[in-house]
Amino acid sequence: MTSSVSTTPCDFVVFGGTGDLARRKLLPALYLRDRDRQLAEETRVVSVSRSGDDGEAYRNTVRADLHRFLPAGEIDERAIGRFLDRLHHISMDVLDPDGDRQLVDLLGDGDRIRVFYLACAPGLFGPVCEWLAVNKLVTDSSRVVLEKPIGHDLASAREINDAVGRVFDESQTFRIDHYLGKESVQNLLVMRFANILLEPLWNSAYVDHVQITVAESLGVGARGGYYDDSGALRDMVQNHLLQLLCLVAMEPPAHVGRETVRDEKLKVLRALRTMAPADVAGSTVRGQYDAGLVDGVAVPGYQDELSDPDRDGSRTETFVALKADIDNWRWAGVPFYLRTGKRLDRRCSQIVVQFKQVPHAMFPGSEGSGTPNRLVIQLQPDEGIRLHMTAKEPGPGGIRLRPVSLNLSYADTFRTRTPDAYERLLMDVVRGNPTLFMRRDEVEEAWAWTEPILHAWQQSGVAPRRYPAGTHGPTAASTLLEREGRSWHEEDTP
Amino acid sequence: MTSSVSTTPCDFVVFGGTGDLARRKLLPALYLRDRDRQLAEETRVVSVSRSGDDGEAYRNTVRADLHRFLPAGEIDERAIGRFLDRLHHISMDVLDPDGDRQLVDLLGDGDRIRVFYLACAPGLFGPVCEWLAVNKLVTDSSRVVLEKPIGHDLASAREINDAVGRVFDESQTFRIDHYLGKESVQNLLVMRFANILLEPLWNSAYVDHVQITVAESLGVGARGGYYDDSGALRDMVQNHLLQLLCLVAMEPPAHVGRETVRDEKLKVLRALRTMAPADVAGSTVRGQYDAGLVDGVAVPGYQDELSDPDRDGSRTETFVALKADIDNWRWAGVPFYLRTGKRLDRRCSQIVVQFKQVPHAMFPGSEGSGTPNRLVIQLQPDEGIRLHMTAKEPGPGGIRLRPVSLNLSYADTFRTRTPDAYERLLMDVVRGNPTLFMRRDEVEEAWAWTEPILHAWQQSGVAPRRYPAGTHGPTAASTLLEREGRSWHEEDTP
Repeated sequence: MTSSVSTTPCDFVVFGGTGDLARRKLLPALYLRDRDRQLAEETRVVSVSRSGDDGEAYRNTVRADLHRFLPAGEIDERAIGRFLDRLHHISMDVLDPDGDRQLVDLLGDGDRIRVFYLACAPGLFGPVCEWLAVNKLVTDSSRVVLEKPIGHDLASAREINDAVGRVFDESQTFRIDHYLGKESVQNLLVMRFANILLEPLWNSAYVDHVQITVAESLGVGARGGYYDDSGALRDMVQNHLLQLLCLVAMEPPAHVGRETVRDEKLKVLRALRTMAPADVAGSTVRGQYDAGLVDGVAVPGYQDELSDPDRDGSRTETFVALKADIDNWRWAGVPFYLRTGKRLDRRCSQIVVQFKQVPHAMFPGSEGSGTPNRLVIQLQPDEGIRLHMTAKEPGPGGIRLRPVSLNLSYADTFRTRTPDAYERLLMDVVRGNPTLFMRRDEVEEAWAWTEPILHAWQQSGVAPRRYPAGTHGPTAASTLLEREGRSWHEEDTP
Repeated sequence: MTSSVSTTPCDFVVFGGTGDLARRKLLPALYLRDRDRQLAEETRVVSVSRSGDDGEAYRNTVRADLHRFLPAGEIDERAIGRFLDRLHHISMDVLDPDGDRQLVDLLGDGDRIRVFYLACAPGLFGPVCEWLAVNKLVTDSSRVVLEKPIGHDLASAREINDAVGRVFDESQTFRIDHYLGKESVQNLLVMRFANILLEPLWNSAYVDHVQITVAESLGVGARGGYYDDSGALRDMVQNHLLQLLCLVAMEPPAHVGRETVRDEKLKVLRALRTMAPADVAGSTVRGQYDAGLVDGVAVPGYQDELSDPDRDGSRTETFVALKADIDNWRWAGVPFYLRTGKRLDRRCSQIVVQFKQVPHAMFPGSEGSGTPNRLVIQLQPDEGIRLHMTAKEPGPGGIRLRPVSLNLSYADTFRTRTPDAYERLLMDVVRGNPTLFMRRDEVEEAWAWTEPILHAWQQSGVAPRRYPAGTHGPTAASTLLEREGRSWHEEDTP
């Protein structure tokens, strides 16, 4: 079904091995790759956490997790058994200088590939790296994987990058953004660069604007405390949405290689127009959800969900919409509208490339000149591509125009499971392929663009606009486009 | 379901009303338009033939024909009753100066629209027109419809056009090519000109070549005698295939109007490079079918099917493939490959626009750089559009390319019956809209291009290549493309 070229043997060490990310995403992804025979026989998976069960109990927890978080069709008890045999658990506190040396003993001093996956709080990124260095566990064939958030502004991002950089070379550092591991996101590169059809149209002469939406229907849930210190701009736009913007906007690299794609993304980030403080109010919309109905179920508002008296009256945004400009030859005058939020009407992530209207309407009597063409790359919930075009409505008499869509549904077309983003990315780490990971300069450049917006919001002292849970967000987000004669592509719009 | 704007009352007179075309195509098309309430209450349909049943018996024949030639779902006995009430039949011979005056009496001297549909032998086009003139039946609001063939060369086409032109103004003359009435052919115009996506790519910078195929699985059958005097080049290429070529190649008109599209088609015909006698052998392939298997059924060869001792050793081509060049700015260096034949492996008409390969293959390790993009406009048996592109094959590891197609199936998309080409075209005649009919200058220009090929074939004295019924035609037709590194798009090729 999927490629089963085995990777070289390695030790895959997850710091935060009993945490949510490890249990829901990393271990299931590693199991699936193992089931498809992509982990070498000798590969070991080592979970590290401050506390936790011992070996056998931990394995049982993981077995239960696999059953819980994977579709029934992916469950193969023999493969699970084999996977659990690779699994070790070590309780230790890297902050304790007298801590357990089990991990040191387990890894030994062989030269096999070591992956240190930091699925823990960013505050621990530095200390974990330091501990690894002190204990001489960082070899030439070691890699470190960092989960977001990498800082909450440019200075703190630099701090983390410096701390990690003292131990790991940049070529060993894998900053993960799981959006880049999505099939449809990588397919965007293939669609753009393995087809002659799109690239000649992919510029300001033919593209009217681009929309990138990452809409969630869930609220902040248990992440309330972290989220309230962060907000949608830091949590989603600075990383995921800007990364998607880069892949849409970048120039064709000479080849898809370790640094070439990242070089091109960096160029886009550098070409993003910094928002002047006076422009922020007009180019961005902040929102925060009130109580409302999502799928017919009553849900509480953000501040109720926080349920923290210290955070009463929080001004953290749970929604942001903004207009970004890319000041380069290709995209001059083509706005990129970004939008993300929690507790919206549905979970839906998509990239919409809206082309310009035809220069001249030549069908007399047809209503208008048809809808402008749109390419919609759907990332969630189902991955697929739709090309919205105008066709002739069948029937005798005058030529009547009608919108139609040409579809490429992943599920229908490939009739194979679309692998989870983490599956691909974890294997890329083992293989040492950083193409789909964020380089230090990208992360910092993205912060450099984000910071002025955060500052302007803070300066203005204006509270985010309220929106009822289960809606499209604040109406001001619609106005942002409407005043320029545009509108957000909603799923039910053709 | 389809537009039911009623047309103005008219008399629709079919010369050759008991012939195959009238019974299989024209009367069923008129019935369907009547059922959809597009014929005005007072509209009459008058069938004229040299002999034939009287009124009631003729109506019964037509009723049986409708049941026979239409899908059961289209049969509506009440609508058939209403349609048969409009139907008149007149036996007369226009060549007989003392012929019946019934038609003159029936039409009277009102000023309602008169459509004279010449569904008879081309040799009668002149005489019928003359008879109409002599009997003063041609009013300002009269139209004449001519079926192919309009001549067998330039001189005879001019003769027919002159004879018709002495009675009918060019604006009253409707030369029908039912391919132009097909939904997918008109949709080609809409796809090209109501979408921004295709037109910028529709030129020699991005198109590698164009293929137009009209493949039939039937043999010549009862038309053997006529066909043997004509052959595939005259019967299909000079009209249908060149018309399709024109619609693919033409420049955008200012609007889709009575003359504008025909003006643009004419420009294409004039830009077609005349084949020098020395080039004909290299740029054309003639074929004639032998006995073979079509869909597993044994069928006779062409010469056996003729079963005419006078035609033994016939050198008439039942297949032709050729390479046409359009010497203009847009299409310089882009060959248009045309191909049509009888007794091929299947019935399939399509236009294939094959785009160039991407200029640079940037995915290392992927097999080649993917298949070049192809736009396939299917005219028969099912109308639809497929866009062949390259996508990423889902799965972790390297980026593997895979051909996929984005589909627009008429049946699936519109969930409505695709009307027959004749339905639209007959209503266009009643409305006096000549956009989709061939103008005199087009027909003659097409003959001017066709003649040198006919002459060169005749001069060479070379017999057509034999091909077994049920195949793709002579292998030389494949070689025609292969020696230029190309290949025909067969249905099962992705």
